[in-house]
Amino acid sequence: MSGGLKRLVPLMDRVLVSRVEPLKKTVGGVILPDSAVSKVNEGTVVAVGPGARTSEGNIIPMSVKEGDTVLLPEYGGTQVKIDDKDFTLYRDSELLGLMVG
Amino acid sequence: MSGGLKRLVPLMDRVLVSRVEPLKKTVGGVILPDSAVSKVNEGTVVAVGPGARTSEGNIIPMSVKEGDTVLLPEYGGTQVKIDDKDFTLYRDSELLGLMVG
Amino acid sequence: MSGGLKRLVPLMDRVLVSRVEPLKKTVGGVILPDSAVSKVNEGTVVAVGPGARTSEGNIIPMSVKEGDTVLLPEYGGTQVKIDDKDFTLYRDSELLGLMVG
Amino acid sequence: MSGGLKRLVPLMDRVLVSRVEPLKKTVGGVILPDSAVSKVNEGTVVAVGPGARTSEGNIIPMSVKEGDTVLLPEYGGTQVKIDDKDFTLYRDSELLGLMVG
Amino acid sequence: MSGGLKRLVPLMDRVLVSRVEPLKKTVGGVILPDSAVSKVNEGTVVAVGPGARTSEGNIIPMSVKEGDTVLLPEYGGTQVKIDDKDFTLYRDSELLGLMVG
Amino acid sequence: MSGGLKRLVPLMDRVLVSRVEPLKKTVGGVILPDSAVSKVNEGTVVAVGPGARTSEGNIIPMSVKEGDTVLLPEYGGTQVKIDDKDFTLYRDSELLGLMVG
Amino acid sequence: MSGGLKRLVPLMDRVLVSRVEPLKKTVGGVILPDSAVSKVNEGTVVAVGPGARTSEGNIIPMSVKEGDTVLLPEYGGTQVKIDDKDFTLYRDSELLGLMVG
Repeated sequence: MSGGLKRLVPLMDRVLVSRVEPLKKTVGGVILPDSAVSKVNEGTVVAVGPGARTSEGNIIPMSVKEGDTVLLPEYGGTQVKIDDKDFTLYRDSELLGLMVG
Repeated sequence: MSGGLKRLVPLMDRVLVSRVEPLKKTVGGVILPDSAVSKVNEGTVVAVGPGARTSEGNIIPMSVKEGDTVLLPEYGGTQVKIDDKDFTLYRDSELLGLMVG
Repeated sequence: MSGGLKRLVPLMDRVLVSRVEPLKKTVGGVILPDSAVSKVNEGTVVAVGPGARTSEGNIIPMSVKEGDTVLLPEYGGTQVKIDDKDFTLYRDSELLGLMVG
Repeated sequence: MSGGLKRLVPLMDRVLVSRVEPLKKTVGGVILPDSAVSKVNEGTVVAVGPGARTSEGNIIPMSVKEGDTVLLPEYGGTQVKIDDKDFTLYRDSELLGLMVG
Repeated sequence: MSGGLKRLVPLMDRVLVSRVEPLKKTVGGVILPDSAVSKVNEGTVVAVGPGARTSEGNIIPMSVKEGDTVLLPEYGGTQVKIDDKDFTLYRDSELLGLMVG
Repeated sequence: MSGGLKRLVPLMDRVLVSRVEPLKKTVGGVILPDSAVSKVNEGTVVAVGPGARTSEGNIIPMSVKEGDTVLLPEYGGTQVKIDDKDFTLYRDSELLGLMVG
Repeated sequence: MSGGLKRLVPLMDRVLVSRVEPLKKTVGGVILPDSAVSKVNEGTVVAVGPGARTSEGNIIPMSVKEGDTVLLPEYGGTQVKIDDKDFTLYRDSELLGLMVG
């Protein structure tokens, strides 16, 4: 996430995520009814914090980095609005997995 | 779990499991009534995370690996759908045991 | 527990126990009424896991081994059926003591 | 925050923050109705404590410093009035992120 | 506690205690009414476990040994019957003190 | 706090504080109504304990010393009367900040 | 506390305290009504345990010793009767302070 706008640098082990919007149209362009729009729990990592600290004060490396596609938990996360765009802040340990391929 | 499809790489000490479907027919092919279908708490490990970290930030080795057959707890686990297939995500410490032989 | 059947290798600090059945007949063969059948909280260790890990990731040795007779807590334990036989899984720290002599 | 007035030096990992007031007028000077005044969860760091201690008594460095603009959590913080001015005290770990750019 | 009978070796930091029975007769042999029988929270240590483990897996030495007379807490302890005799299992840290003299 | 009277030396990380009384008169001597008497959450440190111990038994230095003016939390603290004078005992970590200037 | 009677040696970080009885008469000998008898939260240390252990099993030195006068918390403590005399057992960390002078 770069450019002249305000930018949020997450603190500690927080991860700023932009949720992937579910497809609301078929490939052919037909608009899907709400019930058919499957819930997508995926998002793109926009920014990561430096990492949390161990009980002895050492930094714990983060598991994800900017640009990763991640599988999000059903619940949790803090809604955040920056320059009118919606993001969600998660803790590194809340993210379920990396989507690859 | 490989091939051209989307793939989930679990984070930290998570384990992606595909549940073993209970036998719904006798060996002779007779369809069993629901009441007779015994609940199977077993699953196959599809993918494992790198491991959780100790209080000092060191990685803890995982107890299971891809391909293992595991005994699943009665409760717990997070349901996950990837390319329309159902999986369950467990923490390494939730898995009860390895089924061998 | 060995032989051609499926075998459960407990994970971490879990212990697979087969409960000792209470005597339901007197030595002379007379069948005891339920009320007279004393509850036996003992069991035989069938298999043990490798051990739990310390906060620094080191393995903690188990306190019991296969073949030990153990005193079981009143509550706790996870019921497990393997090849139609009933077992109970305990954590090492749940077991009260070793019965010797 | 300096000058002849009373000054609060936060203890341990506490951070003294002055909340950013939301814009109540348009650029042209028109007064916005309450409903249009968007809630701003940002603040300026006025003073920081020396840091909390690890379980072994070592000081953990703070993540923010005087003058930083920070994203505040929806809840939490302790209201404090110093020389009739309102401030809020947060723990370092409660602050969500740094606003840069 | 020795002899040909079954013997319980407590696990971890558990202590097997036999409660001291309160005096139910005066020195002269007169039977005391229940209300006069003062509750005795003392017991004799019959057997001790090897000790609990620190967070790093080291054994913590026990505070009591076989034959000690101990002051018991009002509550807690697990009732255990061995060869029809009643005992109570405590954790080392539950015992209040040693009665000496 | 010295002189021939009884003196309390706090234990561990406790801090003995004497609350600052709010001004009940204007500078000109006019008595303020209760509603106008602003609540003062400040106090003077009368005595400090040696400090708490880390999980490894080392002493953690205190953050305040005798004579400091401290900002007190809204709640918490233990009321203590010594020679008919009222004091409050806080834990070092409960105190919010030092008032300087 | 010595002499031929039974003696309690507290275990771990426990402290045996004998409460100071409040003055029920004025200096001149006049008996005070209950309401005037101020509650005294002080006591004399009769015996101390060896100390609790750190998470690594090391002994933590006690903060008080036999003969000290201590300020007691409003609540907590375990009532204990030894040879018909009343005492209270506290944990070292429960005691508020030492009364000196």
